[in-house]
Amino acid sequence: MKMSEGVEWTAHACALLAALPPGLGLPANALAEFHSLAPAYMAKHMQALARAGVVESLRGAAGGYRLARPSADISLWDIVEAIEGEEPAFRCSEIRQQGPCVTPNSDFRRPCEIHAAFGKAEMAWRTHLKSVSLADVATEVARKSSPQKRAAITVWLQEKIR
Amino acid sequence: MKMSEGVEWTAHACALLAALPPGLGLPANALAEFHSLAPAYMAKHMQALARAGVVESLRGAAGGYRLARPSADISLWDIVEAIEGEEPAFRCSEIRQQGPCVTPNSDFRRPCEIHAAFGKAEMAWRTHLKSVSLADVATEVARKSSPQKRAAITVWLQEKIR
Repeated sequence: MKMSEGVEWTAHACALLAALPPGLGLPANALAEFHSLAPAYMAKHMQALARAGVVESLRGAAGGYRLARPSADISLWDIVEAIEGEEPAFRCSEIRQQGPCVTPNSDFRRPCEIHAAFGKAEMAWRTHLKSVSLADVATEVARKSSPQKRAAITVWLQEKIR
Repeated sequence: MKMSEGVEWTAHACALLAALPPGLGLPANALAEFHSLAPAYMAKHMQALARAGVVESLRGAAGGYRLARPSADISLWDIVEAIEGEEPAFRCSEIRQQGPCVTPNSDFRRPCEIHAAFGKAEMAWRTHLKSVSLADVATEVARKSSPQKRAAITVWLQEKIR
């Protein structure tokens, strides 16, 4: 079971967007370039985020993508949901309702123990991802960045944002 | 992101094995038949469980698969690990180490905030799955079964176990 690379890519892209001066955006090409990623795939993943309402696309001089909400209101779960969809990883196909020992009076209204356990586990996973916002991530990334790195980003951004 | 059907199939198969009289086993064909599943795929999934040491294969008259440990010592996580492998769903490819703004003095010894958050979320998921044993599942399945269903299973088992 493997998550799309798009989750890692867009989480980092959104952390960068969260650190931009208010009102500014960055095109998908620049977001790809910032981590040396394939521009076409990055564009595809950013479109998924736009469809999910996590980012919005701006036209014009300061064009590109920017966060559609304050970074404190966007969680890592929002990004996973945009890229992977909201379906749980464990898909119950109700096999308990099949086979030679199923009796007419069987009661299948409540989920079986296996389905319920996987559902609870997945809820714990989502709950943690919902508790981490892009603001949390961006704050931590900034805290760990050296003055040299922050300066390099400022120079790079000035070249990208005209 | 989707888990293999093999997780659902073998979780149900193991719940059945957990309910067998001590010392008895069931071949993969019978485990497939019990829920009307494809025998070849069920055989493949049970082999994965055997390789992981969750079940063992017995030869002879009472042959087939049985649990390799007491059902209280096998968790739903053991089954997921056997079918899906132990790699986390979120794969960090360290893209933060790439790009025009990476500076020579950057410190990448500690995982980034994004990697750490996904790791904690996945740990919460695994912890819940590790807390549910096959004994828990089998007890609950038995509790919910009607007398008719239990009788049907007994008749079916007598035909399979010779």
